[in-house]
Amino acid sequence: MSYLERIRRPADLRTLSTPELEVLAKEIRDFLVASVSRTGGHLGPNLGVVELTLAVHRVFDSPAEHIVFDTGHQAYVHKLLTGRQDFSELRQRGGVSGYPSRAESDHDVVENSHASTALSWADGISKANQLRGLHHRSVVAVIGDGALTGGMAWEALNNIAEGQDRSLVIVVNDNGRSYAPTIGGLAHHLDALRTTRSYEKVLDWGKRTLQRSGTPGKVAFDALHGMKKGIKDVIAPQGLFEGLGIKYIGPVDGHDVAAMETALARAKAFGGPVIVHAITEKGRGYTPAETDVADRFHAVGVIHPETGLPVAPSRFGWTSVFAEEIVEIGRRRSDVVALTAAMLAPVGLAPFAEEFPDRVFDVGIAEQHAVTSAAGMAYAGLHPVVALYATFLNRGFDQVLMDVALHRAGVTFVLDRAGLTGDDGASHNGMWDMALLRTVPGLRLAAPRDEDTLRAELREAVAVDDAPTVLRYPKGALPQSLPAVGRQGTVDVLARHGGVPRVLVVGVGVMAHTAVEVGAALDAQGIGSTVVDPRWVLPVPTDLLSLARQHDLVVTVEDGLVTNGVGSAVRDALAAAGTDVPVRSHGIPHAFLEHASRAQLVEEHHLRGQDIAREAASAVAALTGAAEVRPVDRPAG
Amino acid sequence: MSYLERIRRPADLRTLSTPELEVLAKEIRDFLVASVSRTGGHLGPNLGVVELTLAVHRVFDSPAEHIVFDTGHQAYVHKLLTGRQDFSELRQRGGVSGYPSRAESDHDVVENSHASTALSWADGISKANQLRGLHHRSVVAVIGDGALTGGMAWEALNNIAEGQDRSLVIVVNDNGRSYAPTIGGLAHHLDALRTTRSYEKVLDWGKRTLQRSGTPGKVAFDALHGMKKGIKDVIAPQGLFEGLGIKYIGPVDGHDVAAMETALARAKAFGGPVIVHAITEKGRGYTPAETDVADRFHAVGVIHPETGLPVAPSRFGWTSVFAEEIVEIGRRRSDVVALTAAMLAPVGLAPFAEEFPDRVFDVGIAEQHAVTSAAGMAYAGLHPVVALYATFLNRGFDQVLMDVALHRAGVTFVLDRAGLTGDDGASHNGMWDMALLRTVPGLRLAAPRDEDTLRAELREAVAVDDAPTVLRYPKGALPQSLPAVGRQGTVDVLARHGGVPRVLVVGVGVMAHTAVEVGAALDAQGIGSTVVDPRWVLPVPTDLLSLARQHDLVVTVEDGLVTNGVGSAVRDALAAAGTDVPVRSHGIPHAFLEHASRAQLVEEHHLRGQDIAREAASAVAALTGAAEVRPVDRPAG
Repeated sequence: MSYLERIRRPADLRTLSTPELEVLAKEIRDFLVASVSRTGGHLGPNLGVVELTLAVHRVFDSPAEHIVFDTGHQAYVHKLLTGRQDFSELRQRGGVSGYPSRAESDHDVVENSHASTALSWADGISKANQLRGLHHRSVVAVIGDGALTGGMAWEALNNIAEGQDRSLVIVVNDNGRSYAPTIGGLAHHLDALRTTRSYEKVLDWGKRTLQRSGTPGKVAFDALHGMKKGIKDVIAPQGLFEGLGIKYIGPVDGHDVAAMETALARAKAFGGPVIVHAITEKGRGYTPAETDVADRFHAVGVIHPETGLPVAPSRFGWTSVFAEEIVEIGRRRSDVVALTAAMLAPVGLAPFAEEFPDRVFDVGIAEQHAVTSAAGMAYAGLHPVVALYATFLNRGFDQVLMDVALHRAGVTFVLDRAGLTGDDGASHNGMWDMALLRTVPGLRLAAPRDEDTLRAELREAVAVDDAPTVLRYPKGALPQSLPAVGRQGTVDVLARHGGVPRVLVVGVGVMAHTAVEVGAALDAQGIGSTVVDPRWVLPVPTDLLSLARQHDLVVTVEDGLVTNGVGSAVRDALAAAGTDVPVRSHGIPHAFLEHASRAQLVEEHHLRGQDIAREAASAVAALTGAAEVRPVDRPAG
Repeated sequence: MSYLERIRRPADLRTLSTPELEVLAKEIRDFLVASVSRTGGHLGPNLGVVELTLAVHRVFDSPAEHIVFDTGHQAYVHKLLTGRQDFSELRQRGGVSGYPSRAESDHDVVENSHASTALSWADGISKANQLRGLHHRSVVAVIGDGALTGGMAWEALNNIAEGQDRSLVIVVNDNGRSYAPTIGGLAHHLDALRTTRSYEKVLDWGKRTLQRSGTPGKVAFDALHGMKKGIKDVIAPQGLFEGLGIKYIGPVDGHDVAAMETALARAKAFGGPVIVHAITEKGRGYTPAETDVADRFHAVGVIHPETGLPVAPSRFGWTSVFAEEIVEIGRRRSDVVALTAAMLAPVGLAPFAEEFPDRVFDVGIAEQHAVTSAAGMAYAGLHPVVALYATFLNRGFDQVLMDVALHRAGVTFVLDRAGLTGDDGASHNGMWDMALLRTVPGLRLAAPRDEDTLRAELREAVAVDDAPTVLRYPKGALPQSLPAVGRQGTVDVLARHGGVPRVLVVGVGVMAHTAVEVGAALDAQGIGSTVVDPRWVLPVPTDLLSLARQHDLVVTVEDGLVTNGVGSAVRDALAAAGTDVPVRSHGIPHAFLEHASRAQLVEEHHLRGQDIAREAASAVAALTGAAEVRPVDRPAG
């Protein structure tokens, strides 16, 4: 039986010696590489926090003392140490989630994978502990250096500094990267800290202390008597955090369990807010990851464990088309610049950055700044293209509304990973963007359905210089090309069935393919329809309203939250025009979705063509008072 | 002719001597007190930036060099210096806006009044200038110390630090306050800077230099040769900004035009990002403001200019009811705590803070942190009540969704100033909250219509411990009490007209009063109706849907964005249930609204009872194929 298999709960760690912990760390790395290469998942971040997580769980008493992981994809090791060692179905329905999950364990606190939240969670928990007389409980936040560039982290630090009588330990997991290397003044500051003498000093101190005994935890604690003055000795000259009034210990070698444990024990005993600055390597101990300069195997699909090469071909079809087209546009228009928020390569801006290095701005994990600085650029004569994951636009909503739209700034937003992404769980599904953006006056949103429409709509978007424009498309491979068979104004007609079209089937973006299936399935039942892709879906095109009036029923299908979605917008627009053609809207239900595959979610939420056709046929039957139609019992299209 | 009257453009300032500038500063203060006491407006902040603004306009060449004011209510002096001296209709329709306005002047850049944006705007403009070959143009951001606590400011500073070859001058207008005194680690840091020796040093240096000549601008510029090494001399020991890599000059007496000018000229000549830390007094030069510890006359109604006492009684009826009730709740439940974001007194939390000082948390201008730390508190056993202005909740939307709702945290949000506020212009209207919050799964929202329902619904809200709850109510005086005449399930029935009720009139919150007018006006035309207040409007109550099915037409009236609003939610819910009762929704149109009085906006956007009744009558006529009904030509109700 390996050491890993013997760990059932964090307390089991405390009996191990330093050499035993080193063996355990190796076992955990081997497990992660073997397991994640089979299932896909976040590999690099977790290889980087093995020793750090061991040390945290030896020093703090989880779950009584809460450990909050920022951007929870770095919690795999934590899961292994808290009773979850079956990773065979990682991120699959019924298997272990890729993020912390309260349903899985009392040791998990925050499920949200959006970055920079951990310090605010920890501050809230710490304040509650204090009010409830639980002062003796420390709270720990583990946050990457990349996430510290997010504005929330600053807001939290400013407040944490006020609570000098609350034990709140901030472990900065500094690997110099988020998806990509961390940028900005903060990164330079952390760099400067790394090169100070005290780095070696704290390591030496830790080693000397710990070599004296086989029970390092005990000794480390004992050594801490009188630590309040001692702590000063190992504090590096560091303006930023001390300027705010937060003590700092470090830098510490994050791959030295004993050194980490010493630093954490000192921080815990201090009794106030302390930053422990741990230097780690993303991808540590796995050669393919260590030598990958792009993202250190941040998140991988299924890979060969020895070579690190993907088993399946690239899933990023949509992204690569955007990557090509934005370079083309950049060549023609020198005023087009690109911004992103710590996801330059994943959103496809690497080729643009290579060709136009002066015209690309990666602002770090800082969506608010990305959006508002884009408004400034537009004001001063540029056309910025802000490329983000759809789910992260939430963070910049107020800025889209009040800085871009209110000022009629010509900024184009490109939202990748829109719609159901599935295996990353609730907070990664890009399902909120259309519902939010519909509230923004003047904003225009297009949802391309294939490669050709992506290229064309991107060109149309950057041609608009007096309003925000948005393109949104899903994660994954591109579908087959789906040419229009006709056009009605600005609306693409994809199919016409039957002599008397009764149903207008509206497919939004990639769901145009599903809409075509719906039309075919209705046709099989003798119900005529027109299948369209409006291309620009917000605001609702007048041509779409005209088409709606020529049908008895409108059916909309979208890969976004059905509440406030495009279907709802069509219904409202028809009502505002005094036309009450019934609209049946299909989209992602109003709920947080558990992790599962996209296909599972599509089936479960009745978003397959056959499901929608069945409902549409019933609605038509109800409208005409006809008898129940026969169910569609074969896959349509 | 006064000096002020002779200033038509910033260039006119450059011919004035220091003594003349001091006279001008006095004239501006007298003008502001006399004028704003007649019209109402932001008095304290503008009295604090008189000399600062004079200095900025003498050193920088607006509009070629852009001056960005954060939270634009501090731009009155700027307006006076850029050709706008008729303040007789300040913040009234047709008069000067209370915020920068591009329609008014080329000197105005940012109209958004949400805090902490200026640095991002400036960074974007500066980057665009650089790409377009306009390196010689400096960009200036004027930002309060309070706004620096906002996360956006941190995101921007981190990026600004990267641009060491771009001239970007950040003027920190440090009056130690936002609405209330600034809090947190940053505030302590600024305090520490204020007490350093170099404060006196820079003042001495400035005075010595400037006393040598009558043309201080010229001398100041001359003195800057070789300033790159010189700048070090006046840099205070200050870790925070230098830690980020941004040079710092200060602290400077913000009421000494010559000293300010010297510091700004040095900053401009440096050629990279520089912070100029100006110490100012909010309300400076106006005794009633200087002696007001609560908010230094941040924003005032019409007041007597000599005493500073309000002419009209307090307008904050809704707020004071909340203030009372939350104290009552606090007495009964020790787990109830309150949070706000630099608006403790304006949202009515002062009495709660007095009685329960340990249970109130003002986090600074930091809505994201307010929301997520509340989620942490709820997780650890408290029930937080987060009180904000409705428009500022936008800033914490992602946190409401991903931290509170996803984790089913029992957090109550109390949104003051919801709906049309009018005179503060587009970015202050609290019109977005319901449209946004409707997208949040599990969230429940109530809109009280009067004092009794506010008290009752607040008690209901804090009783919910497994989901976010929201209360929203408007700015201003409380309306008359409006008792229910009956109840259908959870829905209050306010009136029943006619034997056969054909129209269901749904009034949301304060618009219940308008709904009653609509019912009466329809009755006068012989159209029966039921008038209801659903109290809890999100999610749509099932009892409301049952009621809807008993009528031919549903009319909704809400004081929020009509797009994605409650009317839209009712329409969608009916459609989802397969019931296509037509719904006519009335609310704030999908646009940014120019500043005007609330009454003007209500009239202009057809939200009076008589307008809505007229449309409803037409809709009923259309439904029944009856002849056009006669118009309602008297005010209803």
